Amino acid sequence: MKLDQGQKLLFIGDSVTDCERAKPEGEGLFAALGKGYVSYVDGLLQAVYPELGIRVVNKGISGNTVRDLKNRWQEDVIDQKPDWLSIMIGINDVWRQYDTPFIKEWHVYIDEYEKTLRELVLEAKPIVKEMVLMTPFYLEGNEQDQMRQSMEQYGQVVKKIAEETNCLFVDTQAAFNSLLKDLYPATIAWDRVHPSTAGHMVLARAFLKEIGFNWDHS
Amino acid sequence: MKLDQGQKLLFIGDSVTDCERAKPEGEGLFAALGKGYVSYVDGLLQAVYPELGIRVVNKGISGNTVRDLKNRWQEDVIDQKPDWLSIMIGINDVWRQYDTPFIKEWHVYIDEYEKTLRELVLEAKPIVKEMVLMTPFYLEGNEQDQMRQSMEQYGQVVKKIAEETNCLFVDTQAAFNSLLKDLYPATIAWDRVHPSTAGHMVLARAFLKEIGFNWDHS
Amino acid sequence: MKLDQGQKLLFIGDSVTDCERAKPEGEGLFAALGKGYVSYVDGLLQAVYPELGIRVVNKGISGNTVRDLKNRWQEDVIDQKPDWLSIMIGINDVWRQYDTPFIKEWHVYIDEYEKTLRELVLEAKPIVKEMVLMTPFYLEGNEQDQMRQSMEQYGQVVKKIAEETNCLFVDTQAAFNSLLKDLYPATIAWDRVHPSTAGHMVLARAFLKEIGFNWDHS
Amino acid sequence: MKLDQGQKLLFIGDSVTDCERAKPEGEGLFAALGKGYVSYVDGLLQAVYPELGIRVVNKGISGNTVRDLKNRWQEDVIDQKPDWLSIMIGINDVWRQYDTPFIKEWHVYIDEYEKTLRELVLEAKPIVKEMVLMTPFYLEGNEQDQMRQSMEQYGQVVKKIAEETNCLFVDTQAAFNSLLKDLYPATIAWDRVHPSTAGHMVLARAFLKEIGFNWDHS
Amino acid sequence: MKLDQGQKLLFIGDSVTDCERAKPEGEGLFAALGKGYVSYVDGLLQAVYPELGIRVVNKGISGNTVRDLKNRWQEDVIDQKPDWLSIMIGINDVWRQYDTPFIKEWHVYIDEYEKTLRELVLEAKPIVKEMVLMTPFYLEGNEQDQMRQSMEQYGQVVKKIAEETNCLFVDTQAAFNSLLKDLYPATIAWDRVHPSTAGHMVLARAFLKEIGFNWDHS
Amino acid sequence: MKLDQGQKLLFIGDSVTDCERAKPEGEGLFAALGKGYVSYVDGLLQAVYPELGIRVVNKGISGNTVRDLKNRWQEDVIDQKPDWLSIMIGINDVWRQYDTPFIKEWHVYIDEYEKTLRELVLEAKPIVKEMVLMTPFYLEGNEQDQMRQSMEQYGQVVKKIAEETNCLFVDTQAAFNSLLKDLYPATIAWDRVHPSTAGHMVLARAFLKEIGFNWDHS
Amino acid sequence: MKLDQGQKLLFIGDSVTDCERAKPEGEGLFAALGKGYVSYVDGLLQAVYPELGIRVVNKGISGNTVRDLKNRWQEDVIDQKPDWLSIMIGINDVWRQYDTPFIKEWHVYIDEYEKTLRELVLEAKPIVKEMVLMTPFYLEGNEQDQMRQSMEQYGQVVKKIAEETNCLFVDTQAAFNSLLKDLYPATIAWDRVHPSTAGHMVLARAFLKEIGFNWDHS
Amino acid sequence: MKLDQGQKLLFIGDSVTDCERAKPEGEGLFAALGKGYVSYVDGLLQAVYPELGIRVVNKGISGNTVRDLKNRWQEDVIDQKPDWLSIMIGINDVWRQYDTPFIKEWHVYIDEYEKTLRELVLEAKPIVKEMVLMTPFYLEGNEQDQMRQSMEQYGQVVKKIAEETNCLFVDTQAAFNSLLKDLYPATIAWDRVHPSTAGHMVLARAFLKEIGFNWDHS
Repeated sequence: MKLDQGQKLLFIGDSVTDCERAKPEGEGLFAALGKGYVSYVDGLLQAVYPELGIRVVNKGISGNTVRDLKNRWQEDVIDQKPDWLSIMIGINDVWRQYDTPFIKEWHVYIDEYEKTLRELVLEAKPIVKEMVLMTPFYLEGNEQDQMRQSMEQYGQVVKKIAEETNCLFVDTQAAFNSLLKDLYPATIAWDRVHPSTAGHMVLARAFLKEIGFNWDHS
Repeated sequence: MKLDQGQKLLFIGDSVTDCERAKPEGEGLFAALGKGYVSYVDGLLQAVYPELGIRVVNKGISGNTVRDLKNRWQEDVIDQKPDWLSIMIGINDVWRQYDTPFIKEWHVYIDEYEKTLRELVLEAKPIVKEMVLMTPFYLEGNEQDQMRQSMEQYGQVVKKIAEETNCLFVDTQAAFNSLLKDLYPATIAWDRVHPSTAGHMVLARAFLKEIGFNWDHS
Repeated sequence: MKLDQGQKLLFIGDSVTDCERAKPEGEGLFAALGKGYVSYVDGLLQAVYPELGIRVVNKGISGNTVRDLKNRWQEDVIDQKPDWLSIMIGINDVWRQYDTPFIKEWHVYIDEYEKTLRELVLEAKPIVKEMVLMTPFYLEGNEQDQMRQSMEQYGQVVKKIAEETNCLFVDTQAAFNSLLKDLYPATIAWDRVHPSTAGHMVLARAFLKEIGFNWDHS
Repeated sequence: MKLDQGQKLLFIGDSVTDCERAKPEGEGLFAALGKGYVSYVDGLLQAVYPELGIRVVNKGISGNTVRDLKNRWQEDVIDQKPDWLSIMIGINDVWRQYDTPFIKEWHVYIDEYEKTLRELVLEAKPIVKEMVLMTPFYLEGNEQDQMRQSMEQYGQVVKKIAEETNCLFVDTQAAFNSLLKDLYPATIAWDRVHPSTAGHMVLARAFLKEIGFNWDHS
Repeated sequence: MKLDQGQKLLFIGDSVTDCERAKPEGEGLFAALGKGYVSYVDGLLQAVYPELGIRVVNKGISGNTVRDLKNRWQEDVIDQKPDWLSIMIGINDVWRQYDTPFIKEWHVYIDEYEKTLRELVLEAKPIVKEMVLMTPFYLEGNEQDQMRQSMEQYGQVVKKIAEETNCLFVDTQAAFNSLLKDLYPATIAWDRVHPSTAGHMVLARAFLKEIGFNWDHS
Repeated sequence: MKLDQGQKLLFIGDSVTDCERAKPEGEGLFAALGKGYVSYVDGLLQAVYPELGIRVVNKGISGNTVRDLKNRWQEDVIDQKPDWLSIMIGINDVWRQYDTPFIKEWHVYIDEYEKTLRELVLEAKPIVKEMVLMTPFYLEGNEQDQMRQSMEQYGQVVKKIAEETNCLFVDTQAAFNSLLKDLYPATIAWDRVHPSTAGHMVLARAFLKEIGFNWDHS
Repeated sequence: MKLDQGQKLLFIGDSVTDCERAKPEGEGLFAALGKGYVSYVDGLLQAVYPELGIRVVNKGISGNTVRDLKNRWQEDVIDQKPDWLSIMIGINDVWRQYDTPFIKEWHVYIDEYEKTLRELVLEAKPIVKEMVLMTPFYLEGNEQDQMRQSMEQYGQVVKKIAEETNCLFVDTQAAFNSLLKDLYPATIAWDRVHPSTAGHMVLARAFLKEIGFNWDHS
Repeated sequence: MKLDQGQKLLFIGDSVTDCERAKPEGEGLFAALGKGYVSYVDGLLQAVYPELGIRVVNKGISGNTVRDLKNRWQEDVIDQKPDWLSIMIGINDVWRQYDTPFIKEWHVYIDEYEKTLRELVLEAKPIVKEMVLMTPFYLEGNEQDQMRQSMEQYGQVVKKIAEETNCLFVDTQAAFNSLLKDLYPATIAWDRVHPSTAGHMVLARAFLKEIGFNWDHS
């Protein structure tokens, strides 16, 4: 298990991360961490490793692109002084190109995405102990699908930056793809983006595997 | 124009037809026809052929399959004494097989679908002047997609019954396919099923073309 | 068809244009364009000419007179950089004179109306490719009715300015008058101003005819 | 003043009478009589003739035609044992012919109207001390207007029945017409039917004049 | 009738005047004048003297004392440029002494009341054509009741100032007292302060009598 | 202290007893006993005599007269098998004669009141261990006030029945009168009927004194 | 893994099981399984064993005791024809003895609990393939605490019945106890009963361990 | 009785004091003092000593720690010029250490608690006539419970400061402990912190005993 006693683990991202978390803090009792993978990671950490006293913070905001993260990086990441930082961004950067194709100023193309994400990672790196980069994903089984292909390209960018900067890396698309062999996308997400409970468990498990979580601990 | 002076045109179907229509009547002022293709057909008929005094009735109910139509056929179709009847059903019959695959009693497989739909058409045929059968559709551009293939099979059933029973026929899938050449599905429907305004216009236009509506009339 | 590939078409006006559009942007998914003629124009353009990728923006605000347009012209028109601009204003300018006759500061008399509208048109002209001026209207069949006569005078002003400035021109009153031969006003609008679906279709069709829309395209 | 000490005065009618009255009783404290002419009549009777102790009951129901009155005549009129009965019905009987012209089963044509109203009056006559018949009205200044002409014909029926059966008679249309010389209809009612406070005062005053109310009493 | 063609009549006061009026304007359609005596005065003026075109404005605010009027006198009275001004204030000035006797800073004693009211009247006098001072009231039949006695003393102050400054004067307490001979206070107001419809009609009639309103006018 | 270990004490009455209690049971956690004197009696019994384990049940219903109690006596009293029963009824029996004087069927005059109350007491007597009769009250300091005089007559009836049937007796009017020497009625109740917290404490204390509650116990 | 392809797994219990599940079905999309351990079990099964197509149904109802389960056993268990059945009941049976000690008819004492639970298990046994009995629990670290001791006795009953009837058995109290070594009860449940996300993860994990779930599968 | 005629008694604290009081004032009619011990103290003072005219003010705010009191001490205490001041703070200072143990910046440890509370008491002392310090409490019967032990240590601090500064002192924990001999904590508070009506009566009575309140006065 890579997390140490008393560490603070901060997640940032879009609506998949947000999931109705409490605003503005994003932590505390009564479902303040939202209803998605962040709260499942927190719940499993506390259930299985209660002795570690890990503090989880959720700073996801619905609709965010990497451009929005940049605007709130100082306040929502740097100022929070996390020990661990997990980033999952890019779904909206791609999605807007497909659901509102005519409103071009809402699109974040891949060059801006890569440049901005790298900038953010490099800015945070020196002040955190460990960083996890999670790819964006698209719950479409057809590998030729245009939007899935775009999403995978953005995922490649994440992978490249993770390698360059020596971050832990979670390939969420790969995690979902193994489900999509058995299940039609509509079973996991009504819009191919916002996952069901099962989908959020996929994300939580992929994250936990990367950080060395042991289900059979204690 | 195939509609005659003072005729009553009744639409029945699922949520695509329903679209927040008034319950139980499904007609009257103040958006009682809902916000979808039925209200657009009504609006265009009244705007372009005000002299005909066509009366449009919406009997769509969200979530319905052909099995549900059967249960309310007497009350919602036969007893209404329409001159024209338009049926668009089958999306949920197929969709439940893909979004809740484990709840088998919610699925309506193709044999039951065909048998039931034919029964309903035959029961209504003698009492209406004209009937329009519209296929179900799925807003997915990939022709190899499983659910799209299923939907097309159900559409084939509709076509077959229309031919057998001499009904007017609207291939909604074909109408949408021509859009999908230019637009990604997410632009037209967040869940590939419930259409945007543009999607409902596609349905209204396909219906109106079949019944001989002339945009440039008067 | 006068619209070109990728153009941005902005509508501005009062509650007939607004129709519950999203604020402040007035574009995007999920009925952000409102429920009236603007969304019908958008839906029909996207349904019939998907290959053009037209971007429609709705900047109508309920209750507005030409005086209000003037106050927000810079922000809501000039700054938006539209390719096409459509203006329909004047109903409230006239209506307040008839429904709250004693509150004189709410009235915009015809001289102010003409002066202000011309000013706005001239200011926008150089920065847009094409402009459409739509008259205000009143859904009253009696040509001797005082308020209808006033509304027609304001409509004449619109026509005059359109001619002077070489704008496209839509006579909405004329479009409605042909309906009023067959239908009593109460069928189209409960207050003779806010149109039913049919009434909004009349507006959408009149607009589309002026810009060369072809129902049978593709 | 024709009302005697301790009498019970019951009003029945449509939405103009109803005006958000308490259901089902239609009397008591806290605006239980609604916000329209019935509550104004009650308020003025109690303010000017407190010594009479008149009991006012409101049995109006929105949307009612004379056909609906017939259905509830026993329960809402006969069983209430009023000393005085005031009836104002017919607006919806006519209006439906103009606002939903294609839904013919909602129309109450003049023969049915006359027959039913006479029946109701004759049934109540023997059990009440005094009856007031008020005409329906339409707030349209143009005497050639179709719907106003229809409404006046229905009003003529009321007058005829009042004369036949020796009821007090209130010509509400005439009362409004004198206002319409000075005010445009939109000042008094947004839909030409549901009156403003001023319009309800016109109705209350016309009623009170007919029953001998003296503004300067005590 | 003392009001002239086209005059603007502004009422200011506490919750009895306010009565759910629209904020901030206090005029316009759709019950913007509230549900109390102000709207009844307006309704009766418009119903009986439609030719005068009187404009009524309601600037009452619930809970106000004369101290609150002073704070908003410039904005809500002077800046409005009324032709006529009617003031009814003082109920809360007295009531707070009886319902929250221990919170002394909420009480406005008679010296402050007199000084402030005179100041406001003198400030408005030169800019209006006519002013009406209405006494506060308390719907208690027992003349020995402490709070009624206090209220009458405040009413005496109003009378004195009206005489000094040559204002029209309405003794609302006297108007109610004649009702209290026949009716127990609970019939007119659940808390002896906020009147029923009948109570507001008493106020409207007392006001209208003072300004020469003729119920039988045309 | 007259209450014994484990006894069940049931209160029945009108809105003063009800005070937003849970329906239908009238007991349990989370303010199920309402916000008035019943919950204060319960709270003080449990706070001061926790060892007794007294079970308090609230069966008050707003608006009730003794006539309503009769209708629900079997279900809400007899079937509950209380050890102690406390009744406070009569306020609405009297109040309706004063606030809605013209609706005579809502009045319960003193003969019916006495006859019904005696009947109910005699019916319950054999099945309970102890019964407490509380008078109705009216928070008016003026002893000559009509409604207060009526209320005292009803209170006299309660006293007479208590004496006849050997019930404990609480003179709530007397308890309030000692407050009214120092406080104006408006301080204790906005409508002279529904008491403030202080007023409910007066009722709770009067009840507790009668049953031998000792504030300094334990 | 003990679950086989396509099996239906039904959970029944109280509010810990219910957790805002959809009523009445308790299955389907959009969080129909609630927000507690049932949905986590479902999510993890679907995430890790998508190929099994397990169907999970939630029939928990807040506030239930074993007495309530008995009343709905036929409809909610037997008629559902589950392959697997999991029961967790008893918390309210005990809790009511401690939070509302005086309302004895709300208590289910241990003899009735044992007798009823055995009856239900024996009734279901023949019709299901496998059954899991989960103990009730109380999140109190002090083993001498009265309510915790009671709860453990009820847990012993569950264990005994599981052994007698050869059911799978989950000792939820034991699972929580290992957390309570590190965490104070208030961290896991505000009322020592309704668990946080972490607490529900404890329940899900304890259940999954008993049925042979392998976190590292596939 | 230590309170004198006309004195102002201000309570400050956390949610136990707040209890849905009116914001921002915290006094006035209609339950403005909230639903807890403050309103009970006020109600009993007014019921038993109406001649004293004590003015009670509630400045409790939910969630507050002593750190929050410091931030609003000037505005909510000093500026209010109370004659008496009662402080009950510390529950949240301790609770956060147990319910959100990982969010350390929400904890107020005992040194900061003591230092801040002493500072506040010393600042207020010179400007009030009398001060009452109430301990925080925890409704847990087990004396070995960690959180109860912490709370008692905080209570010791309150006692020490009360002695140093010569304040009246209320040991609320002791008052509750005598109840906990007979009642399980869940009977008095669902979360061991927010008391039932009975629990608030315990607080009110403990306070009143300290200030010499005599239940049998007058």
